[in-house]
Amino acid sequence: VEPGAGFTLAELAERLEGRLEGEGGRVLSGLRSLEEAGPEHLACLHDPRYREAARASRAGAFLLGETAEAPDERPLLRVKHPYLALARALRLFHPEERGPAHIHPSAHLAGDAELGDEVGIAPLAVVGKKARLGDRVRVGAGSVIGAGCVVGEDTLIHANVTLYPGTRVGARCILHSASVLGSDGYGFATREDGVHEKVPQVGRVIVEDDVEVGAGSTIDRGSLGDTVIGAGTKIDNLVQVAHNVKVGPGCLLVAQSGISGSTSLGRSVVVAGQSGAAGHLSLGDGAVVAAKTAVFKDLPAGARVGGIPAMELGEWRRAAALYARLPEMRREIRRLRQELEARRGPGEPGEKEKR
Amino acid sequence: VEPGAGFTLAELAERLEGRLEGEGGRVLSGLRSLEEAGPEHLACLHDPRYREAARASRAGAFLLGETAEAPDERPLLRVKHPYLALARALRLFHPEERGPAHIHPSAHLAGDAELGDEVGIAPLAVVGKKARLGDRVRVGAGSVIGAGCVVGEDTLIHANVTLYPGTRVGARCILHSASVLGSDGYGFATREDGVHEKVPQVGRVIVEDDVEVGAGSTIDRGSLGDTVIGAGTKIDNLVQVAHNVKVGPGCLLVAQSGISGSTSLGRSVVVAGQSGAAGHLSLGDGAVVAAKTAVFKDLPAGARVGGIPAMELGEWRRAAALYARLPEMRREIRRLRQELEARRGPGEPGEKEKR
Amino acid sequence: VEPGAGFTLAELAERLEGRLEGEGGRVLSGLRSLEEAGPEHLACLHDPRYREAARASRAGAFLLGETAEAPDERPLLRVKHPYLALARALRLFHPEERGPAHIHPSAHLAGDAELGDEVGIAPLAVVGKKARLGDRVRVGAGSVIGAGCVVGEDTLIHANVTLYPGTRVGARCILHSASVLGSDGYGFATREDGVHEKVPQVGRVIVEDDVEVGAGSTIDRGSLGDTVIGAGTKIDNLVQVAHNVKVGPGCLLVAQSGISGSTSLGRSVVVAGQSGAAGHLSLGDGAVVAAKTAVFKDLPAGARVGGIPAMELGEWRRAAALYARLPEMRREIRRLRQELEARRGPGEPGEKEKR
Repeated sequence: VEPGAGFTLAELAERLEGRLEGEGGRVLSGLRSLEEAGPEHLACLHDPRYREAARASRAGAFLLGETAEAPDERPLLRVKHPYLALARALRLFHPEERGPAHIHPSAHLAGDAELGDEVGIAPLAVVGKKARLGDRVRVGAGSVIGAGCVVGEDTLIHANVTLYPGTRVGARCILHSASVLGSDGYGFATREDGVHEKVPQVGRVIVEDDVEVGAGSTIDRGSLGDTVIGAGTKIDNLVQVAHNVKVGPGCLLVAQSGISGSTSLGRSVVVAGQSGAAGHLSLGDGAVVAAKTAVFKDLPAGARVGGIPAMELGEWRRAAALYARLPEMRREIRRLRQELEARRGPGEPGEKEKR
Repeated sequence: VEPGAGFTLAELAERLEGRLEGEGGRVLSGLRSLEEAGPEHLACLHDPRYREAARASRAGAFLLGETAEAPDERPLLRVKHPYLALARALRLFHPEERGPAHIHPSAHLAGDAELGDEVGIAPLAVVGKKARLGDRVRVGAGSVIGAGCVVGEDTLIHANVTLYPGTRVGARCILHSASVLGSDGYGFATREDGVHEKVPQVGRVIVEDDVEVGAGSTIDRGSLGDTVIGAGTKIDNLVQVAHNVKVGPGCLLVAQSGISGSTSLGRSVVVAGQSGAAGHLSLGDGAVVAAKTAVFKDLPAGARVGGIPAMELGEWRRAAALYARLPEMRREIRRLRQELEARRGPGEPGEKEKR
Repeated sequence: VEPGAGFTLAELAERLEGRLEGEGGRVLSGLRSLEEAGPEHLACLHDPRYREAARASRAGAFLLGETAEAPDERPLLRVKHPYLALARALRLFHPEERGPAHIHPSAHLAGDAELGDEVGIAPLAVVGKKARLGDRVRVGAGSVIGAGCVVGEDTLIHANVTLYPGTRVGARCILHSASVLGSDGYGFATREDGVHEKVPQVGRVIVEDDVEVGAGSTIDRGSLGDTVIGAGTKIDNLVQVAHNVKVGPGCLLVAQSGISGSTSLGRSVVVAGQSGAAGHLSLGDGAVVAAKTAVFKDLPAGARVGGIPAMELGEWRRAAALYARLPEMRREIRRLRQELEARRGPGEPGEKEKR
């Protein structure tokens, strides 16, 4: 869906704090990929590998880095950080639409829920007893905000989200559909007869400001004490965060990753897709866990790891590159053994290959 | 729950285009597994390994391949493709029940939503502004169809599904509960101070005809441009499809697999359970990715791969078979080194083992 | 949220069947972690590694094992199984709050649904035709209980859960938000032209007593026959259980694990996080599957396995410890080859390294 009038290239240059090369009067109605752009569109060339694609593109102008080579004679908008400028240009062309600041009559609000100004509650949502929603919060259709939850201002809760009672969410967060915050952690005390007795999970989930939680992700409440998601952390889809995990600020948890109970992540830790960390670990500031990794030990700050179990990333890559050669290595070991045996003098004592 | 009258074996032979061996007058009331079948049931023997189980079964008749060996004297229904015939027989015995073509008064429909003929909307579902639902579409209880969504005829949306605004779903699709289509992709531009700025996700999800999406699966909208799921593709439970992924027709994405952003799958690609593909890759037509695999590079058409990182499947199997023997290989290398050192003449120069 | 009056240490000793050491008159208002406890709190010291942390704690008293060393002079409550006692103490301090035994008027109940005594249905939940809910069942806001479902007494269904028609859940179960029980299994018969024909899934999900299902987990209905979850089994978040799986009693399926179709688990099997089992397998009683494992073969009772593919756990650990040394092993093999070649007499026949 295209917004109204668009912007001239000169206007865009001003708003994105960029430098214009070429004619600034052209009106651009939106941003598109190189492939999909037409003459009325801006396209982003943030990687020199796509220069050929840029030449072939029908885009009216390009957004690119300050020193990047121009693809051709078309107008350019040069910026320091093309990807950041892309994000900002998209916000210009697509101002967020949050739905009306209005309580739909089909929603169910507890009588003692406290709502800030301009809160919007979509049809068939539920807000429980003594819940408190900050100014401009939006609650999507079918979402359930449990009793005693606190949601900070400007937070956007999409449809069919569940917040268990007592969950706290900061300001300017985004919670996607089918995400669940505050479900019981996985805690059982196993009796001698094998019965698993439930350990009541009486802690909370505390999500700080500016956090995004992806669709279908689950964050368990603490057992004792709280599960905490630090400010500015971004969680992708289908991620599991177990009870009493502490995620520091600015972390990235990519799709289908999982953090086991009581593990702590420092600042700006990256856990790539389908990776996991065992429980009671500490992952230091800036640690990076590659995709499909299993972290079973603490990681120092700045560590970069891959593999199952996790090892230093370069080490993992070098080892992984040889994995397919195991049969060849084994054959060569056997040949070495045979040659050594063959050269042995008749009466010379030798060690036979064991199997 | 058993349907009404059942079918005679002769009727089944006609409807399944099979060949009857033995008495055709017996009335069969349903299809069961070999273990659970009684004399009133048909059972399927699609794998010769189960012939003993068939002999032990109490089934009244067997469905099996044209040249398969008969388990005993009981009547047989021989067909070209037993598994396809099984699917069709199940449709005969269990005609689909889709719930009533009726808008439940507790559902919330926007005034300007457009509904085809015989649409059914279950209790407490939500259909947003300007959404368009084709003939005979069913929307399950608690599902939320966002503004501007388009859903093709005969599509079945189970309970508690979420379609974000602008999502397009083709005809004859099936969307299972807790699936989410159109959530924001995971796109952030990280500033120098470490703050992750959200890149607005302004593309759509386009699901073509005859697609099935499993329970709890998530398909993100495109960042720029669209995420596309090709016709006839079947997605299992808890699968993640990231922004701008293009899945070709007839693909199979098995449970808990994940496809990272901007990766393209050709026609009839199979991604087995708990596997993943990194971003910006191309998986060629007919490629097969074994379970628990991590694809980090493009795959040519017809490739069969396994492992982390993915390698040719046979190569992976041969290597994996030797993994447990690493300690033995290392011991043998050490023995070879020792023997070589031992045989070295006293003054002969030699290389010591490094560690 | 703290409960009312609390308990004296002497009262706790009696209720937890423990032995008091020190002054029993102190009133404790709750249980906390060692770090968070104050003088009014009991803290649990179930692992001697935390004795230093216990000394540093401000807790008023400690719960610990019968023979554990006391951290200092503070009162102690000694019990046989500290973790079980912790679970029970938490139940004393936090008696479960299940919400009111009341049918909210905004919920939709089919006229012929059968409800036991003191059933509670939260706002905007749906209970389908002929569903039967036992005494004291709670259905959370936005949950959908399909037609013909049967739910046993005292079962707690949290918000936004989906039970497909015909699902059976036992007594005292707990189903967490966004979990889905009874979705179609992933069954398709592929025609020669590549089209995947749906195999109707006509079995059910049967969940026995005392089962817990985590947030976002999915359990598919049987194709023919049923999917069964045994009594006392505990399923964590985002777990996938495919059609016709039989899970025995007392199993633990940890977060993001997956069990493929028709696989059977015996009694007290543990499948750790992000692990998977292929289809049509049998995992014997008490088998333990380590995290991130892929089980491709049957496991005998008591097996302990890890790795991809799964192997005996000790074997896997020993092999995994050498993985990073593959480059070193390869270099050493090359050196051995070179030395052997160098020592070969001029006319001596030898085998060259192949590549």
